[in-house]
Amino acid sequence: MTETLFTGISQLVTPASGPQRGAAMRELTVIENAALLVRDGLIAWVGAEKEAPSTPETHDLGGVAVVPGLVDPHTHAVWAGNRLADFEARVAGVPYETILAAGGGIRSSIAATAAASIEQLVTLARPRLVALRHSGATTIEVKSGYGMDFEAEVRMLRAVQVLSHEFDLLPTLLIHVPPTENREDYVRGVCDTLIPEVAAESLATAVDVFCEAEAFSVEETWRIFAAAQAHGLKVKLHADQFHAIGGTELACWMGALSVDHLEASGPAQIAALAASETVATILPGVTLHLGLPAAPGRALIDAGAAVAVGTDLNPGSSPLFSVQMALALSVRLNGLTPAEALTACTVNAAAALGLSDRGSLSAGMRADFLALHDPDWRELPYTLGANPVRDVFVKGVK
Amino acid sequence: MTETLFTGISQLVTPASGPQRGAAMRELTVIENAALLVRDGLIAWVGAEKEAPSTPETHDLGGVAVVPGLVDPHTHAVWAGNRLADFEARVAGVPYETILAAGGGIRSSIAATAAASIEQLVTLARPRLVALRHSGATTIEVKSGYGMDFEAEVRMLRAVQVLSHEFDLLPTLLIHVPPTENREDYVRGVCDTLIPEVAAESLATAVDVFCEAEAFSVEETWRIFAAAQAHGLKVKLHADQFHAIGGTELACWMGALSVDHLEASGPAQIAALAASETVATILPGVTLHLGLPAAPGRALIDAGAAVAVGTDLNPGSSPLFSVQMALALSVRLNGLTPAEALTACTVNAAAALGLSDRGSLSAGMRADFLALHDPDWRELPYTLGANPVRDVFVKGVK
Repeated sequence: MTETLFTGISQLVTPASGPQRGAAMRELTVIENAALLVRDGLIAWVGAEKEAPSTPETHDLGGVAVVPGLVDPHTHAVWAGNRLADFEARVAGVPYETILAAGGGIRSSIAATAAASIEQLVTLARPRLVALRHSGATTIEVKSGYGMDFEAEVRMLRAVQVLSHEFDLLPTLLIHVPPTENREDYVRGVCDTLIPEVAAESLATAVDVFCEAEAFSVEETWRIFAAAQAHGLKVKLHADQFHAIGGTELACWMGALSVDHLEASGPAQIAALAASETVATILPGVTLHLGLPAAPGRALIDAGAAVAVGTDLNPGSSPLFSVQMALALSVRLNGLTPAEALTACTVNAAAALGLSDRGSLSAGMRADFLALHDPDWRELPYTLGANPVRDVFVKGVK
Repeated sequence: MTETLFTGISQLVTPASGPQRGAAMRELTVIENAALLVRDGLIAWVGAEKEAPSTPETHDLGGVAVVPGLVDPHTHAVWAGNRLADFEARVAGVPYETILAAGGGIRSSIAATAAASIEQLVTLARPRLVALRHSGATTIEVKSGYGMDFEAEVRMLRAVQVLSHEFDLLPTLLIHVPPTENREDYVRGVCDTLIPEVAAESLATAVDVFCEAEAFSVEETWRIFAAAQAHGLKVKLHADQFHAIGGTELACWMGALSVDHLEASGPAQIAALAASETVATILPGVTLHLGLPAAPGRALIDAGAAVAVGTDLNPGSSPLFSVQMALALSVRLNGLTPAEALTACTVNAAAALGLSDRGSLSAGMRADFLALHDPDWRELPYTLGANPVRDVFVKGVK
């Protein structure tokens, strides 16, 4: 048994455990002059430092704020190639169709990723995950989806598996881009071949689909979800990014962990999410990078939904390498309060991954926590362009 | 004489020297497989590595992109106290008038700053300047303006003077907030006492005024500018942040170095800037932090103006500690292309400070440059939430 008492905590700030919905997202516990007891990687006790149990080993954090480790519930951190020429063309006003016709756009990421070895994918993804961890992410979801053919999809997931020795990762099989021909064969293959293989080899914990007018239909999503659930995998959805075509309602009805994006969600989708157990995951990096409308974070919380925030790290629509900045952007772009943003990036983001063992600093939870540079935790949502996180502890270890 | 040849430069990317206006802001020189010769802190030669002169000392940068050091032409990096409670209240919907009435807002920064010693101000500002330098800033402007009474204003400028031993700083005397009473005496004192003292002791290179419906009038600005110019100081202006009341036109007519903010500038102000030598400095951090309209960066360039970009680092309206992020935000929020944004943050930002010896990688200029992590310079405008700058060289020294 190893036991360490962390002291010198100006403020210990945390949401309660379990996903928090609506107004409860603002209810943080704040303990001034706190201490935190870690035993074998789990939190054994939290409270005022003057009431702390005595332990042989103590670690003085020097009078700074402590919050739970952040969880990034939505990334595409494994890719090859880059989209710098696309970026330059797009901001100069070149239409996306022209970029696609010139060999750019998402199909260039697919071509480069499909051509890369597992080792190459690991080498490319590692510094991205280092950047996310440095910004406060102690658990990170990583999706496949640039593979297209099944072998390449599996190679992406195997790269995530290799990287799981260095980071706490949740792998997701993403069915991302419909093929230009033989679409029906592709969907059947996903259901009958790819999902069973991924499930049998435990290469993913969930299956995600991009449900959109230009991507997969609601009916195709339903078939893929049904296959995933039949093989014991959880489901989640990219929906309402450009058009609300019914994916959100389907996902809520099928018990999806989360529906992500939601920029085009209207009252019906907001009501469906508020009435369900499904987490509403919003991605403000896309809003900033593409200059598109923001997801209705404020309206979702006011309706009673459980909202999470993610980076959506990917080369085309969100080159955002900081979960702290995603948190800070959700306050500026989606109308979340600082307290709601902390809940969104901790317990609610964990719930969006099906995890109930982290995201709150309370007894029995994993000892994943951040020591900031400042005594006031609000530096975390406030700071832009610098990292307010000093130390990242995973299972009590820096 | 010391001489070093920097090699291993995948791309050396630079605007030409001197402020660049309109379409010329997009005309970068890109030299592939380049080298850079530094002699006694100045650039002696740039060109293809295979044509480089032979030197005893070489420094291999390992195949990454090199760009000029960035210049931050607008910061309020010296302040005491914090505005975290204001931030939390504002984003929860509390009106600014209520925050002010509760003792918050800019007057809380003034009270805390006026109460701080020079040593305290230096200690508080140092990590902010370290963050800016880390993000690529090799020259930084710092304003007074939270002092209000003249002694406190001078203390702020003395703090900048102390910090100038560690950083390349340009100090500006900012006449920021009108007093609530005896306003005429205050303006007369600024002109007859404060400006002569600051000029005599070389505590500032320029005088800035906040010209706005709620701050100083155009007539007051004219009097303060005239006093500044009579004492050999340059002038610059905060104008058109909320209302275009004529300050921009006055500043252009009086040969100001720059007019900064410009969120409320219309066709008349854009035309005045385009027809003048005055640099138009835009501040996208304010746009992101306060959720207010963006300055018309695109329209200014299209009209032929010389545009610069700054962080406006300050606790109330722009807690943005990265000049790289200011550059990246100007592409997303103000419609600049990546090339224009690089010009805006280098030669044009230098011109906004009256400096013509830096901001371009050409013979005779200061050897202030950045080595990125990546071989492609476009990572600089593209990356969000991580720092694409690996090494910062000032006068050829890391």
